[in-house]
Amino acid sequence: MTDLQIKPERLLSFIAEMANIGGTANGGCNRQALTEEDRIGRSLFLKWCNTIGGVARLDSMGNIFVHFKGTDTTKLPVLMGSHLDTQPSGGKFDGVYGVLAALEVMSSLHDQNITLAHPVEIVVWSNEEGSRFSPAMSGSGVFAGKLSQSTLYQSVDDQGVSYYQALLETDQLGDLPCQAFPFAAALELHIEQGPILEAEKKSIGIVTGVQGMNWYQITLSGETTHAGPTPMSMRKDPVQGLNTVLPAIYAKVAEYGEQARITIGKITTIPASPNTVPEHVIFTLDLRHPTQSILDKMSNEVLTLCQQVPPILSAKVDVLWQSPAVEFDPRCTEVVRHSAKKLNMNAMPIVSGAGHDSVYLSTVGPTGMIFVPCKDGISHNEKEHVEPKHLIAGGNVLLHSLMQLAQEKEQ
Amino acid sequence: MTDLQIKPERLLSFIAEMANIGGTANGGCNRQALTEEDRIGRSLFLKWCNTIGGVARLDSMGNIFVHFKGTDTTKLPVLMGSHLDTQPSGGKFDGVYGVLAALEVMSSLHDQNITLAHPVEIVVWSNEEGSRFSPAMSGSGVFAGKLSQSTLYQSVDDQGVSYYQALLETDQLGDLPCQAFPFAAALELHIEQGPILEAEKKSIGIVTGVQGMNWYQITLSGETTHAGPTPMSMRKDPVQGLNTVLPAIYAKVAEYGEQARITIGKITTIPASPNTVPEHVIFTLDLRHPTQSILDKMSNEVLTLCQQVPPILSAKVDVLWQSPAVEFDPRCTEVVRHSAKKLNMNAMPIVSGAGHDSVYLSTVGPTGMIFVPCKDGISHNEKEHVEPKHLIAGGNVLLHSLMQLAQEKEQ
Repeated sequence: MTDLQIKPERLLSFIAEMANIGGTANGGCNRQALTEEDRIGRSLFLKWCNTIGGVARLDSMGNIFVHFKGTDTTKLPVLMGSHLDTQPSGGKFDGVYGVLAALEVMSSLHDQNITLAHPVEIVVWSNEEGSRFSPAMSGSGVFAGKLSQSTLYQSVDDQGVSYYQALLETDQLGDLPCQAFPFAAALELHIEQGPILEAEKKSIGIVTGVQGMNWYQITLSGETTHAGPTPMSMRKDPVQGLNTVLPAIYAKVAEYGEQARITIGKITTIPASPNTVPEHVIFTLDLRHPTQSILDKMSNEVLTLCQQVPPILSAKVDVLWQSPAVEFDPRCTEVVRHSAKKLNMNAMPIVSGAGHDSVYLSTVGPTGMIFVPCKDGISHNEKEHVEPKHLIAGGNVLLHSLMQLAQEKEQ
Repeated sequence: MTDLQIKPERLLSFIAEMANIGGTANGGCNRQALTEEDRIGRSLFLKWCNTIGGVARLDSMGNIFVHFKGTDTTKLPVLMGSHLDTQPSGGKFDGVYGVLAALEVMSSLHDQNITLAHPVEIVVWSNEEGSRFSPAMSGSGVFAGKLSQSTLYQSVDDQGVSYYQALLETDQLGDLPCQAFPFAAALELHIEQGPILEAEKKSIGIVTGVQGMNWYQITLSGETTHAGPTPMSMRKDPVQGLNTVLPAIYAKVAEYGEQARITIGKITTIPASPNTVPEHVIFTLDLRHPTQSILDKMSNEVLTLCQQVPPILSAKVDVLWQSPAVEFDPRCTEVVRHSAKKLNMNAMPIVSGAGHDSVYLSTVGPTGMIFVPCKDGISHNEKEHVEPKHLIAGGNVLLHSLMQLAQEKEQ
């Protein structure tokens, strides 16, 4: 069955039809979580599933599980999926591609009358984007027991509509309790949302894990003075602290090689007046590395450098958020690598820089991800684009990875 | 008459009484321009002037001129003064001291029945602070023909009250047209509002001029990307531009010695999100130097450095404001120097880092300033404090400088 392939036209047509729901004038998509557009999109998806014998259940967070029977009733299911909700000015592929490629995989198996040993669940996780309700990855987070359902239920959107109310209004409140169940493996196919695969001319990213992320806020403090009278040597100017801290911390992160990331996304001064030496300079620090122990070491060294300001200044560190590094299940990663090789794809190992539902799933059971390149690495944007050949390649790798995981003897 | 001195108790009492009007709980003053408090303060000042024979006139900007006759009717007046308005959380000395010390000088001459050859005008300039109506130094600016009276009349405060309306409400609209007239010399005694005299243990600053100031806004632009997926080497991160620009421009200004100043008062990023590489970093640049030609050269070099960003970034320079350097009249400066020396004061030449009414006056006629130290250089603050010995020293230098300027044969 090495020759088995998905049907490219059907996959592209699934994607194109779904993109019409909430489609924007600029070619993107606005189909935010638990809106009327989301409801219509989900109904369309369920209609498609129904034609190939999938049986859908809805849980108390609105997660959709579409069940396909296996030949061996003793085996745990293999999960495939992602999310159908989009950013307000989102694209056609982020999340959606993973769900619809899973649908195409099951459609192709159905075409050939193939039933795998393990049952398969296509999963649509609710509110992955987090743009309507906070926090993001709500459905998978509650499923994994990492987020509280009752807190999410009370989360409100900009119009004051709660998650719970939105579930009711869109008929997405299921009677299945949202809670983890054992699975043999979980696979998520997704666009990279970064520029690496494109730059390396690869069709497939074998995702080995997700970067650990540490967010800090650094406050350098000195003394406000008038920009004119006070000589430079008598100032306690926190911007001059920034002047020495910035080069030091960029150089430090560079020492950690190309897998390390440092982003200073936000800088502000207090007060913020052209003719006043500020009392405070505040900046955010987003540090990432795929290996937790290295991230921890790097973070400690960077924070130490942030605090090495001249004695006339002071430095304060606040921890904003920490997300530990994830290493995906070695067997899942190996299956993806093997499938890509068997299909003669240009593939490379890659670490995800962004968070995904799979981060939560990996705390429940064996999890893996597959990436395909997107144009210029652009995502969360109406311009988001993926070449059809990559969409097809990803679908085929998903198909063959599933077949390997769902037919093997191990649970 | 070298022995002639002002009366310290009277000067300190003038200052203390005036400070009660609009006095704040924290020992500062809130007597903003053309408020009821300002009206009461001005009335008190005029009452004091009246007792020593001063004749007050009010002009169309609310500037007060208190005339004291000279013995020689052919001679031009000598002006002494500053402003009585304060910042919302201002001190007791900024401006006020210059007006009340001039009053004390005339009171001391009156005590001794001394009439100088030149007439003397004590001037109270309106809305110097600019905290209620913008721009600052309104009264002297219109007087010197550098600001437009009709524009100022339409300037409104936070409550929507116009300058003109405030003039009417406080009875400060005079019938004298606000326009420049010739004067023999103008002297302004003021607190330094900086830390230099205190650090140098001097009582008197012989102000040789006012720094030239150039304000710019620099925008470094790159490309927004997600903080995770994009490797450092593939980023177009304007914060990394800041990282190289900041040290370069601080070092450049340091080359220009201790009279040069650089202040980066405001830094912002667009967008400002912890996990997004910003598209733009925007910062203000306040450059100062007492010599215009040096300021121009330094500014050009600094702006060139700001534009020397890696080719993946771009840099844009906007000119926000420019105020040319002022050199005060050499004879006025020499008279102040000579008076301080004659009185055995600890004095030093100093360049004002802040703007004053004298900047505008210097475009009309020979102008000079005298500084006294203030504690820790703090001003525009309720904590503003000046030691009585310095207040007295400044008053005596003003007295002897006036006597020299107003008795000399030259116009």
